[in-house]
Amino acid sequence: MAVQVAVCGPAQCGEREWDLAHELGRLLAERGAVVICGGHGGVMAAVAAGARSRDGLVVGVLPGADRTGAGADLSVAIATGIGQARNAVIVHSGDAVVVVGGSWGTFSELALAMRRGGVPVVQLGDGWRPVDADGRDLPGLRYARTPAEALDLTGLWP
Amino acid sequence: MAVQVAVCGPAQCGEREWDLAHELGRLLAERGAVVICGGHGGVMAAVAAGARSRDGLVVGVLPGADRTGAGADLSVAIATGIGQARNAVIVHSGDAVVVVGGSWGTFSELALAMRRGGVPVVQLGDGWRPVDADGRDLPGLRYARTPAEALDLTGLWP
Amino acid sequence: MAVQVAVCGPAQCGEREWDLAHELGRLLAERGAVVICGGHGGVMAAVAAGARSRDGLVVGVLPGADRTGAGADLSVAIATGIGQARNAVIVHSGDAVVVVGGSWGTFSELALAMRRGGVPVVQLGDGWRPVDADGRDLPGLRYARTPAEALDLTGLWP
Amino acid sequence: MAVQVAVCGPAQCGEREWDLAHELGRLLAERGAVVICGGHGGVMAAVAAGARSRDGLVVGVLPGADRTGAGADLSVAIATGIGQARNAVIVHSGDAVVVVGGSWGTFSELALAMRRGGVPVVQLGDGWRPVDADGRDLPGLRYARTPAEALDLTGLWP
Repeated sequence: MAVQVAVCGPAQCGEREWDLAHELGRLLAERGAVVICGGHGGVMAAVAAGARSRDGLVVGVLPGADRTGAGADLSVAIATGIGQARNAVIVHSGDAVVVVGGSWGTFSELALAMRRGGVPVVQLGDGWRPVDADGRDLPGLRYARTPAEALDLTGLWP
Repeated sequence: MAVQVAVCGPAQCGEREWDLAHELGRLLAERGAVVICGGHGGVMAAVAAGARSRDGLVVGVLPGADRTGAGADLSVAIATGIGQARNAVIVHSGDAVVVVGGSWGTFSELALAMRRGGVPVVQLGDGWRPVDADGRDLPGLRYARTPAEALDLTGLWP
Repeated sequence: MAVQVAVCGPAQCGEREWDLAHELGRLLAERGAVVICGGHGGVMAAVAAGARSRDGLVVGVLPGADRTGAGADLSVAIATGIGQARNAVIVHSGDAVVVVGGSWGTFSELALAMRRGGVPVVQLGDGWRPVDADGRDLPGLRYARTPAEALDLTGLWP
Repeated sequence: MAVQVAVCGPAQCGEREWDLAHELGRLLAERGAVVICGGHGGVMAAVAAGARSRDGLVVGVLPGADRTGAGADLSVAIATGIGQARNAVIVHSGDAVVVVGGSWGTFSELALAMRRGGVPVVQLGDGWRPVDADGRDLPGLRYARTPAEALDLTGLWP
């Protein structure tokens, strides 16, 4: 089975996050990876559009019980009907998890991915950060400036 | 987005159920439909094999929190981590639901599909049946003898 | 921890199902069992009312992401936000599962309870029945005519 | 129905977190609030023990499909079988959410609670913090030094 990479990010995003997510999607498709995302707008739509621009396969894992709101660039939409609990489904389905941008939903995905353990988790660009009580970065989470660096940090293509 | 059809059935099945599910997968792929299934063995493996024999797209929606046990013919595996609650995810993701064979898990999918409403639900072959207190078939559920008839009864290709 | 019994049934029900569920709730509370139910109307409200009439503890496991629609007789409402997938949560939480009346949602709970295995599942009164391809009752499911008989069939109070 | 407060924290914790969570549970029980927690050890066990010391009602929402690992002080255990997705269920069930201590699972609960919106979310003690790209605290989350202050910040007892 192909490599699968979960890409998480806010449903609204600025131009910079859009560009990062779009390029990430393009690179993932070029390497033959399946993209798993939340299936809605913003970063989710950007990564889907990038992947589809290279004929990549993109699965949107939606919160709703039907395909309402599914993005136009998805290859498949999974209508979970389990609401925000679907964030756990997204991060469980990736061989790596890449997070672009910051929102509370995105942050829950980052945390659930780290909670899962054993899978690389990369923050791409300037998103929100978790820090400990002394304001220090927490160990384990990886930070990338560019989509290419994010893919390197996943370790999936050594 | 392509038509999506959920196909449900037991993880162990006899030759007859295997053949029905395999042919169903083949026909679905020939019509360009994405197959959504539970991703494990038996009927799930048969419909996946049939679809892949025609280069179809097959998504396995697994109960576990990783891809353990994912069938070889899946295009994508969604590791839900939500156990049997994933049966609801499978039936929410289809424009129609086809059930092949009988088991308690399969029966829960049939019932959740009927509960969902608004989507055709077809029992293909001789599976278990729900009857009312007087032993009569319940309205709404459709019964097909062949995979071709099952597709007709979905009404998706008029 | 106290014994917990899951009680499942339709959100609309007739007088006969109401009376059965109410008496069942009353008996469960008298024996010190916690009642787990779906938290809405019909059979769910009846079993809750019966249990509360004897100061019993009743937990409603709701499909929605907030407590909208929670019945007045619940001691606690769990707002799952996972829709019909919550049916699996209800049946996993009981040391036994008792089903009163018939609906597709109820039927999915019966099937998920049988799928779970290792826990007694009792149909109380004249609900829907699952039969095999030859119209015969499936093994394992127990049938009771009265609430007292249902409790006996759970085997929890030998 | 009684007020319900979700209390989240790591399954392993130090003495300070234990004391904070235990006192929080005690205060919640004294005010008649139902405690909703994850049902396992550490902070979850501490808040349960505190609540039970005042005859409070405590519901543990477990990740597993049976009651394995349920804490001794729970009044009721909900066996969700949905793994870490149950974190969403916990935070949906509270009229307020209080977080004690830091772990990735706890952090996902904090984020899901903020994502939910419309409900007060309080970090009690020195846990992990989410900060924006410039290292600043994110708006909305409330910080308390003592259990009594945490309850004040929920606004549930004005």
